[in-house]
Amino acid sequence: MNNGIDVVRVRDETPGCQSLVHLNNAGCALPPAAVVDTTMDYLRNEASRGGYETQRDRAEQIAATYTSLASLIGARPSEIALADNATRAWDMVFYGMRLAPGDRILTCRSEYGSNAIAYLQQAKRLGVDVSVIDDDPSGQVDLDLLEKKLDDGRVKLVSMTHIPTQGGLINPAAEVGALAEAAGVPFLLDACQSVGQLDLDVTELRCDVLTGTGRKYLRGPRGTGFLYVRENAMDTFEPAVLDNGSAVWTSPTEYEMSPDARRYETWEKNFAAVVGLGAAVDYALDLGMDAIEARILALGDLLRRTLTGIKGVRIHDLGRSRCGIVSFTVEGFAPDDVKRVLAGNGVNVSVSKSTSSQWDLPSRGLASVVRASAHYYNTESEIEHVGSLVGGLR
Amino acid sequence: MNNGIDVVRVRDETPGCQSLVHLNNAGCALPPAAVVDTTMDYLRNEASRGGYETQRDRAEQIAATYTSLASLIGARPSEIALADNATRAWDMVFYGMRLAPGDRILTCRSEYGSNAIAYLQQAKRLGVDVSVIDDDPSGQVDLDLLEKKLDDGRVKLVSMTHIPTQGGLINPAAEVGALAEAAGVPFLLDACQSVGQLDLDVTELRCDVLTGTGRKYLRGPRGTGFLYVRENAMDTFEPAVLDNGSAVWTSPTEYEMSPDARRYETWEKNFAAVVGLGAAVDYALDLGMDAIEARILALGDLLRRTLTGIKGVRIHDLGRSRCGIVSFTVEGFAPDDVKRVLAGNGVNVSVSKSTSSQWDLPSRGLASVVRASAHYYNTESEIEHVGSLVGGLR
Repeated sequence: MNNGIDVVRVRDETPGCQSLVHLNNAGCALPPAAVVDTTMDYLRNEASRGGYETQRDRAEQIAATYTSLASLIGARPSEIALADNATRAWDMVFYGMRLAPGDRILTCRSEYGSNAIAYLQQAKRLGVDVSVIDDDPSGQVDLDLLEKKLDDGRVKLVSMTHIPTQGGLINPAAEVGALAEAAGVPFLLDACQSVGQLDLDVTELRCDVLTGTGRKYLRGPRGTGFLYVRENAMDTFEPAVLDNGSAVWTSPTEYEMSPDARRYETWEKNFAAVVGLGAAVDYALDLGMDAIEARILALGDLLRRTLTGIKGVRIHDLGRSRCGIVSFTVEGFAPDDVKRVLAGNGVNVSVSKSTSSQWDLPSRGLASVVRASAHYYNTESEIEHVGSLVGGLR
Repeated sequence: MNNGIDVVRVRDETPGCQSLVHLNNAGCALPPAAVVDTTMDYLRNEASRGGYETQRDRAEQIAATYTSLASLIGARPSEIALADNATRAWDMVFYGMRLAPGDRILTCRSEYGSNAIAYLQQAKRLGVDVSVIDDDPSGQVDLDLLEKKLDDGRVKLVSMTHIPTQGGLINPAAEVGALAEAAGVPFLLDACQSVGQLDLDVTELRCDVLTGTGRKYLRGPRGTGFLYVRENAMDTFEPAVLDNGSAVWTSPTEYEMSPDARRYETWEKNFAAVVGLGAAVDYALDLGMDAIEARILALGDLLRRTLTGIKGVRIHDLGRSRCGIVSFTVEGFAPDDVKRVLAGNGVNVSVSKSTSSQWDLPSRGLASVVRASAHYYNTESEIEHVGSLVGGLR
């Protein structure tokens, strides 16, 4: 047992742990066998019984995915919508906003590329203003600046990434939520990297909308994501698009949107992946998100300490609170080369580039960084091994 | 061999054919074993190697899905975008259109519910006009009326479903395309029910955009769909939403859209389903779309003839050309009851309701119809069996 996690058991239950050191969990984590088995069992059922017929027979199992996701973040099942990924979940809210010229969106330096591109597209289309709040000296979003900016009467949305793709920063989401709430401005939180990594509660976070993905820290299937919309914020955002899953066509000239968060969904889904996501969330709930968070943060710290001791290595993680994602560079080696050498030794890491983070990495003089992201199934000896591989580069 | 299809072989290769009579192919067809195996093999690979690592290793296999889809409809791979379903593919184009108050969309009576809801949402948001072209006496879209309506200078889009969800009609898409082209108006064709059923060629259809799904006549996985956008129409439609898959974030204030149809995609996908879709398309290409179309149409005709001979049964299929989808009612029995009785005898059919077709079924005095949809793997004796079950209802 380690930080409350039975590491031997979770590794036994993870086929990928047998043959490699996977430190690309912020990209896509290794699923437990239960997730793959649940998904494949559903696929076999579809093939032998028919797709719609299986969907009807498995209605309870499908509904359980919503209940599990709601439990995970302290929400109601009616506040959860499924999507094909976190970005599409986010799009359903953001692109549905009726923004007018001069309206302002507040975001932060560490914002994710996909969201930034969406802001810029809507800025060009609608004439809205995108205002990037600077970091405080620690490198997290500056709360004083945010509070001041919130006061100008033009702000229609605070939209921010909780944990960026390119480093270990945990942005102070609950504090941002409190400021947005006080200003009466909706708060959209991209929790793509924090769901499944941190023990999240939407009430504490004070967010109106939260988006998450299945494939990263939740260890679910690819092509799964979800959206939380707070019940009393449901009518604040019109879904960007509607279909006959999110609405009912009631007469030749009328439709009625679903009363709950299903209004942000699309009718057709990969239901095998949906039940696989349910199995992934149940696996996390069974281990306990508090235990998961404690172990991931401890392994992140260990990885940072291990790398810090190596000559020529620089850690680039910002902020006061840091997570299981560790960003670094090695003097004399391009990040892509570090990744390649590690891959050749059975270690998966990734590289974060400025094209995902134009408001952050370039301002720090960085074109790219190596990203090693630990999960609870990683071990202390794996981290030691990575340390010696990085140390051996020079 | 039957209409060029080796029915014994295709049934042997389809696990679901062993235990049931599946006539819900317009809902979701039974996949060949090759599709399920390809999908599950990819999932196992992800679990043992990592999701991003598998995506990199299988890049050629993933690219082949685009090439196969392009072959299927006579397009270039660069004109194909993948989506999570046909509706989301359609949304990416339709909701991206910069429509102004008074702009007109022309569509048809048999239009699909999801598309209609989208028109109505944009009509309410933007003040655009949705004009439903009446049917001609045969029940297909009236081409003379369409030509007249195209002339009013306000029409910004012709958007139509090729084969409706609620019956056997094949709308004259190529003729509609020719009229739209002559009027200089873009033509968006929803081919959700025709892809994999009919031998389609985008040049003959003269469509600027075509959308299709994987799960229906293509026999692919759920949660897959695709979009074709003709190369010279690429800049006619701005993608409704963008992310860092469809665009590159090039500087703090700029992005560049993908030069090809990938600009309509989202970065994250269920790649197991993507390669499964590729396997499904390859299976169809291997059999030959001409042979597939011939057999499906012949089985549709046989099913209509079989049911027509039964007292109290009415066929509701419209139009001059009819496909493998057969819509009918049985006097004295609600469609849902017919479906239930057939299901109890191992026969899958579905029920189409007015909530999918408010511009069609209600105007014919129909609240719902039974929909039996044949695929090439169905047999003449299965259809005879269904005939005797329906005959035995009374």
